[in-house]
Amino acid sequence: MSDRTIAAGKNPLRQADDRRLPRIAGPSGLVIFGVTGDLSRKKLLPAVYDLANRGLLPPGFGLTGFARRDWNAEHFAQITKEAVQAHARTPFRERVWKQLEQGIRFVQGEFDDDDAFDRLAATVAELDTQRGTGGNHAFYLSVPPGAFPLVCKQLARSGLSQSADDAWRRVVIEKPFGHDLASALELQEVVESVFPGDSVFRIDHYLGKETVQNLLALRFANQMFEPIWNNHYVDHVQITMAEDIGIGSRAGYYDGIGAARDVIQNHLLQLLALTAMEEPVSFDAGSLRAEKEKVLSAVRLPRDLGAHTARGQYGAGWQGGEKVLGFHDEDGIPPESVTDTYAAIKLDIDTRRWAGVPFYLRTGKRLGRRVTEIAVVFKRAPHLPFALPDTEELGQNALVIRVQPDEGVTVRFGAKVPGTAMEVRDVTMDFGYGHAFTENSPEAYERLILDVLLGDPPLFPHSKEVELSWRVLDPILEFWERDGAPDTYRPGTWGPESADAMMRRDGRTWRRP
Amino acid sequence: MSDRTIAAGKNPLRQADDRRLPRIAGPSGLVIFGVTGDLSRKKLLPAVYDLANRGLLPPGFGLTGFARRDWNAEHFAQITKEAVQAHARTPFRERVWKQLEQGIRFVQGEFDDDDAFDRLAATVAELDTQRGTGGNHAFYLSVPPGAFPLVCKQLARSGLSQSADDAWRRVVIEKPFGHDLASALELQEVVESVFPGDSVFRIDHYLGKETVQNLLALRFANQMFEPIWNNHYVDHVQITMAEDIGIGSRAGYYDGIGAARDVIQNHLLQLLALTAMEEPVSFDAGSLRAEKEKVLSAVRLPRDLGAHTARGQYGAGWQGGEKVLGFHDEDGIPPESVTDTYAAIKLDIDTRRWAGVPFYLRTGKRLGRRVTEIAVVFKRAPHLPFALPDTEELGQNALVIRVQPDEGVTVRFGAKVPGTAMEVRDVTMDFGYGHAFTENSPEAYERLILDVLLGDPPLFPHSKEVELSWRVLDPILEFWERDGAPDTYRPGTWGPESADAMMRRDGRTWRRP
Repeated sequence: MSDRTIAAGKNPLRQADDRRLPRIAGPSGLVIFGVTGDLSRKKLLPAVYDLANRGLLPPGFGLTGFARRDWNAEHFAQITKEAVQAHARTPFRERVWKQLEQGIRFVQGEFDDDDAFDRLAATVAELDTQRGTGGNHAFYLSVPPGAFPLVCKQLARSGLSQSADDAWRRVVIEKPFGHDLASALELQEVVESVFPGDSVFRIDHYLGKETVQNLLALRFANQMFEPIWNNHYVDHVQITMAEDIGIGSRAGYYDGIGAARDVIQNHLLQLLALTAMEEPVSFDAGSLRAEKEKVLSAVRLPRDLGAHTARGQYGAGWQGGEKVLGFHDEDGIPPESVTDTYAAIKLDIDTRRWAGVPFYLRTGKRLGRRVTEIAVVFKRAPHLPFALPDTEELGQNALVIRVQPDEGVTVRFGAKVPGTAMEVRDVTMDFGYGHAFTENSPEAYERLILDVLLGDPPLFPHSKEVELSWRVLDPILEFWERDGAPDTYRPGTWGPESADAMMRRDGRTWRRP
Repeated sequence: MSDRTIAAGKNPLRQADDRRLPRIAGPSGLVIFGVTGDLSRKKLLPAVYDLANRGLLPPGFGLTGFARRDWNAEHFAQITKEAVQAHARTPFRERVWKQLEQGIRFVQGEFDDDDAFDRLAATVAELDTQRGTGGNHAFYLSVPPGAFPLVCKQLARSGLSQSADDAWRRVVIEKPFGHDLASALELQEVVESVFPGDSVFRIDHYLGKETVQNLLALRFANQMFEPIWNNHYVDHVQITMAEDIGIGSRAGYYDGIGAARDVIQNHLLQLLALTAMEEPVSFDAGSLRAEKEKVLSAVRLPRDLGAHTARGQYGAGWQGGEKVLGFHDEDGIPPESVTDTYAAIKLDIDTRRWAGVPFYLRTGKRLGRRVTEIAVVFKRAPHLPFALPDTEELGQNALVIRVQPDEGVTVRFGAKVPGTAMEVRDVTMDFGYGHAFTENSPEAYERLILDVLLGDPPLFPHSKEVELSWRVLDPILEFWERDGAPDTYRPGTWGPESADAMMRRDGRTWRRP
């Protein structure tokens, strides 16, 4: 993209064709809306510091907070310092902090306060002259999606969304990107009426994770895996994001959203796309997006949604030695809520590569263990030249990409059991990301914020992908709405019985990761 | 085979179709010639005890030693006990030992002493009546191959090679199976004039190793590996057996034999056959042998043997912090000896599966490290959708089967280096045989002796395979004979420079395992 060329061109240390040199952001500033929230304190502010500490931000970098609270720049700087000291990945260095601190600003206001946004515009302009941010600013909307239209309008009204010819303005939004297809399209229209499509960066922090990017390396840098990455050899794929915690204090956000909207629509369908897509011509945003869109358009829902989906709500019980509340007893959840805290769906992909290979996606809270993984489960060998009882304990080969925790790759295969018979049993072989490299993995938000500043969009889902994902999910959500209340499941288990039944119908079982 | 059915039929604990029950030898005895040698003391006698300790020998098992030395049964029993206590894999248990001891006999004599063999015949007959060995006896020829004809003739003359209708007599021979094709055929004629082909068990102790058998499980019990096990994906195969020791006190055996005859002709060509063969119908001896023979008949030598083979002799130097002798200075080696202590050859296999994929075989003494492995090295991916410098440190995928030490499987592949660029570097994933199973691996000799007693021949190379292997090696040996003296290499290195040059000609390098 031209953005990329500009970013690269502006950075004298980096040439477009030499990716080995560190990618350093050019003159720029970041404005965070909702700077008093959890995400900002735990992830965004520490990530900005970590980037500065790694020398990847320009010396005059501007960091502006915008919030309702009655803070000033000194107070916000103090809050930022505390957040950095508590949550940053890299060590605290006074010199780096002092440098960063000089670019910290704060604007107090409500989103409907024209005056506040005018003050923000003045602050940003001031940064350009005082700190040399060069007119390049990104606006990070860490606010409820209901506020997106208002903030976008204000950014337009105050002139903040428009840049001079050789500068850029970008907007960063977090999921949920709408509540269903219609609201997603509406939201998109609002945002894109203010910012051009290639200036909108949708954060899916999973895509910033090393293992997810390693999925691309695994598939396309190697000779061993791609030949078996198709319906000749793959039996099915299971994509799981399991949490062991409940909804915590997020009732206001979660109720009415639920597991499928919160996780499947974005994270899991993105993982599906990266797992199933054809090889892109290159890893630039356009080529990557084209392949993801192709595979997402080829996703087909099962005809009988009752038989091939499952959802649940966690009940009260025990988890990790502690008594925990059921979903209906959580603070802020109405007793009649039918919101899913567990969701599982089966999808087919109508392509030559994947026809006949179901993709099972599941996510839930209060499950047995916190884990995110993609498991490619292979068919059994077409023929086993072994005596029958010798392969009784042999399962199916599997290649498992562990996204979190303990990022890595596991291969399960059959090996001979020591002894005088030719007995074969499943064993695993393992690659641990953390053990293999001395390099530390940057936090997902570090990578993503840097990419926003660089205008490097491959890791951000495009609006078309968001739209396609809702097209997949909408009919399921509508079916569930008609279908009554979700099943209850016990905390610490792997979801409702109906989820197991859904797999049993296909003669398969869920992995117990 | 009928042998197998008989063995299974005789054992009431084991049915032919249930291989899970332990395979227990029926009534039988083992006669060892050369019982005073190293192999007997370190491997054979301990293996017999380990089998007894695991309950796999019949209670009345007979163990008879035959040697020149002036021992008697008590003395031999004492020697056996010491060997067991020093070298057995399983703990010493007095009760098991007492039981085994009662079946121990000794016959003193020379191989040309008719009377001694008559006494042996009487001893064996006595075991049948006193211990219930049922006329079933195996003769283990742990003697120099020059003595095979004489011992075989004596076994025939004394009636020992003939059994009653429902009993069996078997002979076990150790490599070298001849010195070249002609002598191998001669030896075979001698042995098979006395024992029918299916009663001759040729020991290649490598084939008794778990990892070698695991190679069959790996290839044929799994779905993941076989699809890429061919010339579409494999670039070449390297089979290595490296020793870090010199010839020690084996000058008498080694000089004139050399590395190629000692190791390539049997071990390495067997490993090649198991790696490259098509899937057998089953793992019974006949099916397995048929596939090994097919692939060995398809082996083709390179036209220019000078360019595609290498050999060497270790010089004097340092290894492992110790000063070591050169081959020519070893006790018993004449200074003009042209015997190879290192040999490397390149072979092609003229089949649809392997055409164009060279197999490189090498073995040597005083090399960098003791290791035996089969490395299947894959081609690079046909296209890398990465920026050029990002894959500079990416090698070729490889699947390495480690036969010894530290038996297991390693897969080398490319993974993304943590960081903000899509840089890819080689990493490994590992399966360790010893870590994966709580079951202990039986020693190769345990497995092989039990198989002899059970009449279970799949792990023993057939005479036809021996013949085919010599057909591969003979032209190389003849070429080397005309070609002058081997190159010298320094101890602790990976062989002579000519071996590296041989790989360089093909644009490849030897692995440094």
